[in-house]
Amino acid sequence: MSNQEALTSYIAAFVSELVHTGIRDVVVSPGSRSTPMAMVMAEHPDLRVHINVDERSAAFFGLGMAKASGQPVAILCTSGTAAANYFPAIVEAHYSRVPLVVLTADRPHELRDVGAPQAIDQIHLYGHHVKWFVEMALPEETEEQQRYVRTVCARAATTALAAPAGPVHLNFPFREPLVPNLEREDLFQVSERENGYVMIDRGIPTLASQQLERIGNHLSNYSRGIIVCGSIEQDGFIEAVTTLANHLKFPIIADPLSQLRSGTHDGTNIIDTYDTFLRNEDAKDALKPDVIIRFGAMPVSKALTIFLKENKQADQWVIDSGSGWRDPSLLSSLMLYCGEKEFCQSILEYVEKKSEDDYLIKWRELNSFTKTCLKKIRDVNQLSEGKLFHMLPDILPEGATVFVGNSMPIRDLDTFFHFNHNSIKIMANRGANGIDGTISTALGASTVLQPLYLIVGDLTFFHDLNGLMAAKLYDLNIKIIVINNNGGGIFSFLPQAGYPKNFEKLFGTPLDLQFEHAIKMYNGSYDLITDWEHFTSSFQQNMENVGLSVMEITTIRDINLKEHRDLWNYVSQEISRLLKGDRA
Amino acid sequence: MSNQEALTSYIAAFVSELVHTGIRDVVVSPGSRSTPMAMVMAEHPDLRVHINVDERSAAFFGLGMAKASGQPVAILCTSGTAAANYFPAIVEAHYSRVPLVVLTADRPHELRDVGAPQAIDQIHLYGHHVKWFVEMALPEETEEQQRYVRTVCARAATTALAAPAGPVHLNFPFREPLVPNLEREDLFQVSERENGYVMIDRGIPTLASQQLERIGNHLSNYSRGIIVCGSIEQDGFIEAVTTLANHLKFPIIADPLSQLRSGTHDGTNIIDTYDTFLRNEDAKDALKPDVIIRFGAMPVSKALTIFLKENKQADQWVIDSGSGWRDPSLLSSLMLYCGEKEFCQSILEYVEKKSEDDYLIKWRELNSFTKTCLKKIRDVNQLSEGKLFHMLPDILPEGATVFVGNSMPIRDLDTFFHFNHNSIKIMANRGANGIDGTISTALGASTVLQPLYLIVGDLTFFHDLNGLMAAKLYDLNIKIIVINNNGGGIFSFLPQAGYPKNFEKLFGTPLDLQFEHAIKMYNGSYDLITDWEHFTSSFQQNMENVGLSVMEITTIRDINLKEHRDLWNYVSQEISRLLKGDRA
Repeated sequence: MSNQEALTSYIAAFVSELVHTGIRDVVVSPGSRSTPMAMVMAEHPDLRVHINVDERSAAFFGLGMAKASGQPVAILCTSGTAAANYFPAIVEAHYSRVPLVVLTADRPHELRDVGAPQAIDQIHLYGHHVKWFVEMALPEETEEQQRYVRTVCARAATTALAAPAGPVHLNFPFREPLVPNLEREDLFQVSERENGYVMIDRGIPTLASQQLERIGNHLSNYSRGIIVCGSIEQDGFIEAVTTLANHLKFPIIADPLSQLRSGTHDGTNIIDTYDTFLRNEDAKDALKPDVIIRFGAMPVSKALTIFLKENKQADQWVIDSGSGWRDPSLLSSLMLYCGEKEFCQSILEYVEKKSEDDYLIKWRELNSFTKTCLKKIRDVNQLSEGKLFHMLPDILPEGATVFVGNSMPIRDLDTFFHFNHNSIKIMANRGANGIDGTISTALGASTVLQPLYLIVGDLTFFHDLNGLMAAKLYDLNIKIIVINNNGGGIFSFLPQAGYPKNFEKLFGTPLDLQFEHAIKMYNGSYDLITDWEHFTSSFQQNMENVGLSVMEITTIRDINLKEHRDLWNYVSQEISRLLKGDRA
Repeated sequence: MSNQEALTSYIAAFVSELVHTGIRDVVVSPGSRSTPMAMVMAEHPDLRVHINVDERSAAFFGLGMAKASGQPVAILCTSGTAAANYFPAIVEAHYSRVPLVVLTADRPHELRDVGAPQAIDQIHLYGHHVKWFVEMALPEETEEQQRYVRTVCARAATTALAAPAGPVHLNFPFREPLVPNLEREDLFQVSERENGYVMIDRGIPTLASQQLERIGNHLSNYSRGIIVCGSIEQDGFIEAVTTLANHLKFPIIADPLSQLRSGTHDGTNIIDTYDTFLRNEDAKDALKPDVIIRFGAMPVSKALTIFLKENKQADQWVIDSGSGWRDPSLLSSLMLYCGEKEFCQSILEYVEKKSEDDYLIKWRELNSFTKTCLKKIRDVNQLSEGKLFHMLPDILPEGATVFVGNSMPIRDLDTFFHFNHNSIKIMANRGANGIDGTISTALGASTVLQPLYLIVGDLTFFHDLNGLMAAKLYDLNIKIIVINNNGGGIFSFLPQAGYPKNFEKLFGTPLDLQFEHAIKMYNGSYDLITDWEHFTSSFQQNMENVGLSVMEITTIRDINLKEHRDLWNYVSQEISRLLKGDRA
């Protein structure tokens, strides 16, 4: 009985503190060893417990919630391979800097490494992919253990959120009996301190005035500067960076995940078709920068990466509040470890406002010219991956979130989704760029952001089909567009496509699946789109739907490849003509 | 060009050596970074390349093949979270001692930890759950690198297979361009040594005669001995252990995974209903042993575990060729690290053959009495989980393999599947006892063992639905019986079932899925079983089927619980009556 009381006090203290840290959502996968934590969590009036049987999907679901809200989410599972199933989402959370508090139940020490059932080595189970690992003490009912468990909890939530945000892992050994005493009246009563045990205030790394002065002086010497924004989520950053760009008269190369391509902010200096025009040698010649100021993760565009690599003479500055090393080309000349928004705001004082020059105008001109050329995609009559993304700003409702799959969708979005004054948020799992867990991440995000559209290829959709279970179980609202090109579309763009012998077997991998069946199983509505008219009407119809709606667009990989190549060639020729005309 | 030649030579040498080690099957998940290895593997005439898009399923599929064949299987995936998806199967392989050669492609060093796409920290990615990890050198075309890559390959396969067998992990950094030169005529030509680069002969740990003499002397002093066999797979073990049991006149407590419950061997001393009669206090009183000789993993039965714990006065010997510590109760008094079969054979000389005594007869009598009582399950009219397993020996075709899910199926099999002279192999994932990856493991096994029956609950079936893709893609033959009690049946047997408030939400977790839709998507045949007559006809019909056949049996968790409890109570009362009759 005393064991049960110790277990109850210990866990109730942990769960109380979890709520005090601001965590409101926990994703729980059913299991035996995790019983005490799950039962106490379900008792707390301020926690939403989301059940998800498949732990792989569960962890991605938690990731999606945390990614959409910017707040840590807790995930809980039992011991054994259950915990191993969390691994892909934890890796993604680590590299995409999403705060997750991972709670795994474990066997107590005497049952470890002795062949006990469902006992695996969970110490540092996720290796270097979590920011902090704690092997928790066994429950004891002393005041000190109450302080201990509350302190660890507060630290865990703060550590998950501190830049760079990421997952933390607490491993809880529990002994039988596993059922806590939920009859206690004072279950969540905070005995010592009413408002949580310990608060943690985090500061933001800030450059000193001498540093800013030095940097400002540097900046004054450059005449051909560009700002590059990859995936970044920080309140106030968009205003700060557009103000800085206007002050310096630098173009902003805006990755779709920079959130700079949609919104009410000033779009004058936003460059959004670089993935196309930076394939052209004449354009690249005309746009050589002398300084590159980068914020956020590396952008998606390979053309941009090559452009940056080719301009190794340029200074490259990377501003990263997470103190990472976001420079796969190894060309950075200055790493600035400080708040991104804060940098944009504070550097203004140290460099004079400039006036528009030819360099900026050239970027804008090429961007607007390319945008006009790319409109040609609208003339495509058959169902087309590119056209779909080009249409998005026109058809999406205000306030929509678009979650895109990796491989082709994020690239097509990059090419075809251009600046607009709507309020459209773009999301993707770009930490490790996997095709796994996409449905679950989007569903997790859909609990925070509505309406939410997920656009994925068939392999990505297949990989996380189990994720749809959450949509059914909780009647979640999500609108999914599956681009079914029956296999791995991206491989057609890679060199192995030149070797047909085993190409379809190893890379094309057609699955020949009729997803309609799966959608039915998960109570979704389903439309196999036949043409653009059908798409438009189905899209309109689905806006009114609640629950899971799936539209499937069938395309052909070879035609898609040709469509892209033809369009890029056409645009490239037009650009060369334009630039030669300039020179003539 | 020279880079391509270096890449080609290096990988071709690796793949040649892989074939020389005896590996014939590789499971490949499509990806870009793994291109050179995948393309070369597909060229080798003696390798079967199995494509599996979902890496979690792919790894379990490989596990199933290796488990069924006893031979190492290689699995290959690209960099990033793809590799993290292997983790659950690797953990299972580690604890169930299944040889797997895990090959992951990686970014080269200059693209690591610098924000490059799909680059994660893959060094020691699976922690302590692999036996050996090698960060491979970058491809070079020197003779030394050829020797290096061949040597590592040979070591990897042997290490995976050496007791205790398990997974090994080789991480291959590859630079672009990733396409090898498959035009080379001498692609797999072994330049230096025709029959593989290096052979490795492994010895079996063998006790010296002094050790055996000491043990034999001990053994002579015991009059109440039992042999306990858990999961074990060793050629010749069954004959050796039954001979030993007959020599010592010890009963053999035979877990279903000992493979001792079916076969042409002598069943006289096989005890197979202990999970039921060891719940009875009178029986346990009558059967107290003074020595326990254990082979293989800990058996499934909780009643047996409790019995062993209660008999802490008994000597407990554990024979383990894998030099592990298979003793969750911490009651072993002697660990014997030597070949199991070899121990059974060699100890015979050191102890005299005994004659039957009351102790053995009591075990046999209780076993046969319990077996008769348990036949009552046949009288159940409604669809019943217990009855299904009781029928198996009668209805399964000769040579069948039954793969059972964790949670309830393995336990029901333990209770209701009794000794028979058919040839029926039993398999389960009992390393970490997860519900994940079961379909894929069974499908992998089905490529080696036919006919194969998989019996799983609905949660286990749901967890690895993606696994069915392999059945569709390769027209694999598998007959699946899904016991659908709409949720986690095992939790009804656990203490939390006494707390109804959040029970269904946290533990019952009804999914309300109509699996028929999913089966259709994977081109399977499907029968929703309505009664036993329907079951029998459907079962007969499915014997003739090729491909994927699914029979779904719907049961109700509460009724199932009551059925089990009532039967155990009935048997227990009958046993007490029998034993009191004995004493009277």
